[in-house]
Amino acid sequence: MTDRVNPEVRRVADDIDTMEIRGAATIADAAARALRVQALESDASDPATLRADLRAAARTLVETRPTAVSLPNALRYVLRGATGQTVEEIHENVEATATEFCARLDRAQSDLGQVGANRLRDGDIIMTHCHSTDALACVEAAVEQGKHIEAIVKETRPRNQGHITARELHEMGVPVTLIVDSAARRYLNDVDHVLVGADAVAADGSVINKIGTSGLAVNARDRGTPIMVAAQTLKLHPGTMTGHTVDIEMRDTDEVIDEETLAELGSPTVRNPAFDVTPPRYVDAIVTERGQFPPESIVMLMRELFGEHTTEPWVEPA
Amino acid sequence: MTDRVNPEVRRVADDIDTMEIRGAATIADAAARALRVQALESDASDPATLRADLRAAARTLVETRPTAVSLPNALRYVLRGATGQTVEEIHENVEATATEFCARLDRAQSDLGQVGANRLRDGDIIMTHCHSTDALACVEAAVEQGKHIEAIVKETRPRNQGHITARELHEMGVPVTLIVDSAARRYLNDVDHVLVGADAVAADGSVINKIGTSGLAVNARDRGTPIMVAAQTLKLHPGTMTGHTVDIEMRDTDEVIDEETLAELGSPTVRNPAFDVTPPRYVDAIVTERGQFPPESIVMLMRELFGEHTTEPWVEPA
Amino acid sequence: MTDRVNPEVRRVADDIDTMEIRGAATIADAAARALRVQALESDASDPATLRADLRAAARTLVETRPTAVSLPNALRYVLRGATGQTVEEIHENVEATATEFCARLDRAQSDLGQVGANRLRDGDIIMTHCHSTDALACVEAAVEQGKHIEAIVKETRPRNQGHITARELHEMGVPVTLIVDSAARRYLNDVDHVLVGADAVAADGSVINKIGTSGLAVNARDRGTPIMVAAQTLKLHPGTMTGHTVDIEMRDTDEVIDEETLAELGSPTVRNPAFDVTPPRYVDAIVTERGQFPPESIVMLMRELFGEHTTEPWVEPA
Amino acid sequence: MTDRVNPEVRRVADDIDTMEIRGAATIADAAARALRVQALESDASDPATLRADLRAAARTLVETRPTAVSLPNALRYVLRGATGQTVEEIHENVEATATEFCARLDRAQSDLGQVGANRLRDGDIIMTHCHSTDALACVEAAVEQGKHIEAIVKETRPRNQGHITARELHEMGVPVTLIVDSAARRYLNDVDHVLVGADAVAADGSVINKIGTSGLAVNARDRGTPIMVAAQTLKLHPGTMTGHTVDIEMRDTDEVIDEETLAELGSPTVRNPAFDVTPPRYVDAIVTERGQFPPESIVMLMRELFGEHTTEPWVEPA
Amino acid sequence: MTDRVNPEVRRVADDIDTMEIRGAATIADAAARALRVQALESDASDPATLRADLRAAARTLVETRPTAVSLPNALRYVLRGATGQTVEEIHENVEATATEFCARLDRAQSDLGQVGANRLRDGDIIMTHCHSTDALACVEAAVEQGKHIEAIVKETRPRNQGHITARELHEMGVPVTLIVDSAARRYLNDVDHVLVGADAVAADGSVINKIGTSGLAVNARDRGTPIMVAAQTLKLHPGTMTGHTVDIEMRDTDEVIDEETLAELGSPTVRNPAFDVTPPRYVDAIVTERGQFPPESIVMLMRELFGEHTTEPWVEPA
Amino acid sequence: MTDRVNPEVRRVADDIDTMEIRGAATIADAAARALRVQALESDASDPATLRADLRAAARTLVETRPTAVSLPNALRYVLRGATGQTVEEIHENVEATATEFCARLDRAQSDLGQVGANRLRDGDIIMTHCHSTDALACVEAAVEQGKHIEAIVKETRPRNQGHITARELHEMGVPVTLIVDSAARRYLNDVDHVLVGADAVAADGSVINKIGTSGLAVNARDRGTPIMVAAQTLKLHPGTMTGHTVDIEMRDTDEVIDEETLAELGSPTVRNPAFDVTPPRYVDAIVTERGQFPPESIVMLMRELFGEHTTEPWVEPA
Repeated sequence: MTDRVNPEVRRVADDIDTMEIRGAATIADAAARALRVQALESDASDPATLRADLRAAARTLVETRPTAVSLPNALRYVLRGATGQTVEEIHENVEATATEFCARLDRAQSDLGQVGANRLRDGDIIMTHCHSTDALACVEAAVEQGKHIEAIVKETRPRNQGHITARELHEMGVPVTLIVDSAARRYLNDVDHVLVGADAVAADGSVINKIGTSGLAVNARDRGTPIMVAAQTLKLHPGTMTGHTVDIEMRDTDEVIDEETLAELGSPTVRNPAFDVTPPRYVDAIVTERGQFPPESIVMLMRELFGEHTTEPWVEPA
Repeated sequence: MTDRVNPEVRRVADDIDTMEIRGAATIADAAARALRVQALESDASDPATLRADLRAAARTLVETRPTAVSLPNALRYVLRGATGQTVEEIHENVEATATEFCARLDRAQSDLGQVGANRLRDGDIIMTHCHSTDALACVEAAVEQGKHIEAIVKETRPRNQGHITARELHEMGVPVTLIVDSAARRYLNDVDHVLVGADAVAADGSVINKIGTSGLAVNARDRGTPIMVAAQTLKLHPGTMTGHTVDIEMRDTDEVIDEETLAELGSPTVRNPAFDVTPPRYVDAIVTERGQFPPESIVMLMRELFGEHTTEPWVEPA
Repeated sequence: MTDRVNPEVRRVADDIDTMEIRGAATIADAAARALRVQALESDASDPATLRADLRAAARTLVETRPTAVSLPNALRYVLRGATGQTVEEIHENVEATATEFCARLDRAQSDLGQVGANRLRDGDIIMTHCHSTDALACVEAAVEQGKHIEAIVKETRPRNQGHITARELHEMGVPVTLIVDSAARRYLNDVDHVLVGADAVAADGSVINKIGTSGLAVNARDRGTPIMVAAQTLKLHPGTMTGHTVDIEMRDTDEVIDEETLAELGSPTVRNPAFDVTPPRYVDAIVTERGQFPPESIVMLMRELFGEHTTEPWVEPA
Repeated sequence: MTDRVNPEVRRVADDIDTMEIRGAATIADAAARALRVQALESDASDPATLRADLRAAARTLVETRPTAVSLPNALRYVLRGATGQTVEEIHENVEATATEFCARLDRAQSDLGQVGANRLRDGDIIMTHCHSTDALACVEAAVEQGKHIEAIVKETRPRNQGHITARELHEMGVPVTLIVDSAARRYLNDVDHVLVGADAVAADGSVINKIGTSGLAVNARDRGTPIMVAAQTLKLHPGTMTGHTVDIEMRDTDEVIDEETLAELGSPTVRNPAFDVTPPRYVDAIVTERGQFPPESIVMLMRELFGEHTTEPWVEPA
Repeated sequence: MTDRVNPEVRRVADDIDTMEIRGAATIADAAARALRVQALESDASDPATLRADLRAAARTLVETRPTAVSLPNALRYVLRGATGQTVEEIHENVEATATEFCARLDRAQSDLGQVGANRLRDGDIIMTHCHSTDALACVEAAVEQGKHIEAIVKETRPRNQGHITARELHEMGVPVTLIVDSAARRYLNDVDHVLVGADAVAADGSVINKIGTSGLAVNARDRGTPIMVAAQTLKLHPGTMTGHTVDIEMRDTDEVIDEETLAELGSPTVRNPAFDVTPPRYVDAIVTERGQFPPESIVMLMRELFGEHTTEPWVEPA
Repeated sequence: MTDRVNPEVRRVADDIDTMEIRGAATIADAAARALRVQALESDASDPATLRADLRAAARTLVETRPTAVSLPNALRYVLRGATGQTVEEIHENVEATATEFCARLDRAQSDLGQVGANRLRDGDIIMTHCHSTDALACVEAAVEQGKHIEAIVKETRPRNQGHITARELHEMGVPVTLIVDSAARRYLNDVDHVLVGADAVAADGSVINKIGTSGLAVNARDRGTPIMVAAQTLKLHPGTMTGHTVDIEMRDTDEVIDEETLAELGSPTVRNPAFDVTPPRYVDAIVTERGQFPPESIVMLMRELFGEHTTEPWVEPA
């Protein structure tokens, strides 16, 4: 059956595999477009065949990156739109759905930024951790709405992504105060919002983000400071709907300490986890391009957008 | 009246003033010894004169460092011992009290270490923040008791004192895991005790310690991990008994970021507080050379050792 | 295009604008009926034109009160029902949806009362804040179910709406105890449910209600007393789906203190906010005419009833 | 009209009534099949009649057990599928829906087990309360995934269902430690997951389960240990959508103490509630055969599967 | 034996009984002076007789107000000073102790004010409840230290003592914002300290103060705002050392509502408790004239000042 | 030097060693009396010798039970009284102190009962765990004060000491409701006080008591129910002042499950800890014969009664 997969689909799969196509949004866009091609160029004469072809194409794509987040989300979204009683209807619906998906994707960050900006008030002080373009989009939109925003920026060891955040906020005209990560609690009572991004959001409402996010969120709750996570729906992790946990990458030791110093200390073990997990009870709102959501409701958004994950839409029915 | 101050007291005061004598314990020791000299070499013929001489000597010393912690504690401790109906009794009592104070001071860290070690069990994993010889004395004593202890060491930005802690623990034979500060929460469920030192302990039970301590303590409480503070009684801050707060030193920007990088980021403000304040409800025990105490009771130990602070014992009665 | 708006729609818009039509439910009812007229009297010959007409009618209505809550909810509900492939189908569906909306609205409070009453048990004691007909509908239904209910009624300064609540509960045969607002905590351990209404419910699960609600809810949680909010779905605030916050009205000083007394006190500033915001973690259930919901799920009910707010259904597609 | 109810439906109703058919899953399966028979063997000549017949059949079934949980869930699920413009379409849709329901039901526990197993990691230690085949299915699936799992099993007075759990875990090859219920807190810091089943899940996110569950969950939260509830969607209690509370069965005294001993103690009152209610804020995830959910979102799953409960689908429209 | 009671003691007892002498501090002062007279004018020829006379005098005084707080504290303080081997020593010690007590009392509020002022920083915003001269003494001292302080003043229904507080703060030059009690939580994040007085402080660390204090304290903790109680040691309730609870006065209905309005509401019960009890975990510091204390340590201050309460010093030994 | 130990001291030491003398109070009483004999029958001609003899006697006694709680407390109390400049003064003071200690001990439980009873109000419902004569003394005293008290009694698996508690409360005329341990949380909102005893109280304020106490206390705090611990000062654990932890006894398996059933379950490991540790933040008051104390202050009472533990008073000075 796989010979029925459109060559364009195969080319996209190859490019994802070889990382010619990379980045969560770019992969998602390419996958949606590939499914559209599969539908439009299909010679399937009946709905069942067309659907089987679409599933085969999706399988070809998903297998290139079994642990990716945005790829299966794109495929699920488009396949959910592949409804219709006739080949023509399916064609039409796949085209519409894929086009809608890509259009949404294209403007997702600025849509998200509007939503996040609406939560901010003129004069607010935010605290950031790491660097997130989604989070910065909220600030940028707020500034464009004419609001005066100030920022306390955690440097975010070990890689100091806070420096990038500081520079970009500066370029927006936002006054920045830079602090070490350990100084966060001391300034939380001055802060109106903790604002962070997300690497992934899980079906149980947990937020997977740069190491240090969870400790910050616990302190923010203790201080009465609201915590807002900016994350496009592309970050909703489909595997977590069936209970899968998100693997936390362990990064190189030398991000934490250079080899010479390490040897001087008697060569201790170094542990350098990239991310941690913030439970939903420490997060006030997840801001997406489709609006804001309490973290406990996000699984329902996942179901709405991508279907129930226990049925993988690209698997052939038994 | 001040011409009655013993020249040795003046010499010690000068040395404290010029920082020839420095370090909390060294200053305290020198001050107690100076008061002893004042008493022993006194030519006062009546108790009232002798007491006035001792107060004058104490004033001379305390005025060299109005914000110090250990200096007034030493003076208070010795003056409280200056009881007696006769000049001879006062001589005897000052000598005994000063000697006891210095002897206690001399072995305070190892006494404290025993107390702290008793809280640790064989096989325990501790987490440390910054570098504290009091805290390390607890681990060392535990190791000497034959207990196997492991440590997760936070690097403690901006000055990485965790590196010193790591090396010293390594030298005790304690297996060490080094992490960035932000990774602490992730490992707290593996940890049996958070163990830190203190720069000062306040009468309201707050612990003033290296920036980052309070955020760690809040997370430890949230994770169900006990928090233990190792602090000699020399760290009990006398001014806090009358409500004074402890000034938090703001340190140089270049500990946080070098000038060139700072300029590249648009020259944000940098705030680099040296310490923060952990409220007593996040601390399980303060371990001193006189035993362990819940933080809420420490004010009573302060009164017991140093008297009620609202009466400054070196001030002439009106 | 706006000349295609039905005159009845214009009349309703004018009446809303001039406040001839007022009250959340009355406005919603009129708006839904106006859209039905627009559909039924339409001379549109194709679905696209009919839909454009409906959007134009909705715009005319919504622009009269850009910050209202119930008005856009009504329009969204009806427009979401404007499906169909033919003009006839659309006619039929708009009629059905508008009729259903108005019928629901008509019996919403009594339906809500049933749901709330089911949460109460015979012998329960409730505590109320302010005056809410939705909350009282729950008690009334419980009494009609034959349950004995007692009430502790907070007077609710500054306007003492608790007096109205007390009188209406008395008329239902419910024994009432009246207290000042500050006495609430003292009686919370005797209380089985805190029962309040809502001025608006936000997409992040927050409840906007009479000033004092949030402080009461925090204390109720601390005492282990469940908190129940009675709010028709008309109170679900659509703007909050896109992150907008609800403006809190500041009311007149003289509700708090008369001018003469104020002058005697040296004319302090008086702040008299009408409402406050209770975060979802302090609310156990929001009771609506469509059932009860944890506050964290209410955004999904908003989507179900009114659609995704980031697409305003009355805006012309670009 | 009731003479139009199919005799097979009446037979099933009788068997449920006489408890020939018993057990939540068995009842649900029989009810769904009975509705399918009603549809397939119907002689209704128009959709309205067919729908009325289906409602009548559903009423006949639901009335046998007005307080059951799984029975109305099955009927609601099938009736929601009874869509269509023609008798044939309805036939087809009822058949498909009923078949899907029964197929889902048949594999629900193993599907649920997969989801739960995915939350567990190799080497995890779980703590159990009571005996739940849903909870054990998670462990079994984890073991089959090759994970090493250990268990601390609470005996679960008064009926010691923990003994059954211990034996079944032993048979899976899981090392078991048995403790009395009161010893749970002492071991919670060693535990990675508290894993329990549910007798019912309520629309407000509460979990009704064996007495002792709520106290365990509060302690697990205090210790930082996540709590996971395994419950098929059959356990979602439909009556709670409209605010009904779940009656807690009071069981016999002699489960707690024998009569002779009771008399020796002066015949105190004995209270033996079978279940208690755990609020959603103490539960991290509810694991179902349709994926995992935060408890606060479960009402939306109930709506999705069974419709809005305020409209009972078997009631004749007024 | 009672004929040995000095007539001046009897006169003072009568004046306390008839409320000629009233007010906590005035009563305490008079009682201490009366004991001094008893000692100085005594004709007792041996220490045992003198001590018995002093106990008799104390009994005469304490019996006038068995539930008072300051009276037994004064008597305990002086009797604890009645040490000595000879009649002369006892005379001398009673005189000194009584004089010290009265002198302390005389300057207690200003001493307390200094301690409280030290906790405030330049620019701080405080929130007050009710009217407390001890609390205001802290603000006044802070203003005299040159600090700029602002205040948010709760009106404190039912008797609006907040108005007095507002006026007195205004007279100190402190900018005041007046709010209703229910508005407190909304402003807590702007506030640096909640500052209240106390009617009594109990041995278990509870603070008995104007109704509404405990609800405010719970909210302040939730918002991360510290809570400071200003209370002279005269307010330490001696009966609570032996577990006695403090009776909460129920005040007149008409403070809450006038009779006519009450009748219009159907004559509900009105409950008007004057005070409530704030547990120590919601209080950060109790500020006294002898320094500041965590509430959990206050029982040790009570023992230090007044002795162990289980031995009532005025009772004749069996 | 040990030949100077009085033969009566040796006899008492032997009897403690062979458990002829057993029970915490009996041992303490015998030890205090033995020290008194040592002092009174001493032929020491100078204070130094007499003090050395007393230390030697104390060493002889303490070595019989190095881990006991009450024995060292008795010795410390008496030795602290061994002050004086002459042999005669020391004789007199030891006699007085030992006599006072024994007299206190004799009436400690009834004194404690009075204190605890004062915390209870007429009509209160208490919840008990395990069996504690100290706790029951509080109830008994309350009943004798004329208060109506009811009790909910947890059976306290595995040894059902709750049955003894139930019977003794019944004999006092207290209405009892018996529940399994797991049912506690369900009834906590009906309860005014949780009332338990203690096996030991630690210097950090922790309460060591029957397994299950800590889980109960955490739930009581969550429900807003105060927790009161009744414990004579004999239970204050001296070793904990220097950080020693209290070993938790692991008891026999067959208290939990009989061998046959155990084998049927696949012979799981059984863990049967006798006690657990409740942190001070979950305890409202510790009731002793010397009054009530917040747990955080108890270390100061230990110091007051027994001296600073880091100096063991029976050790010869170096």
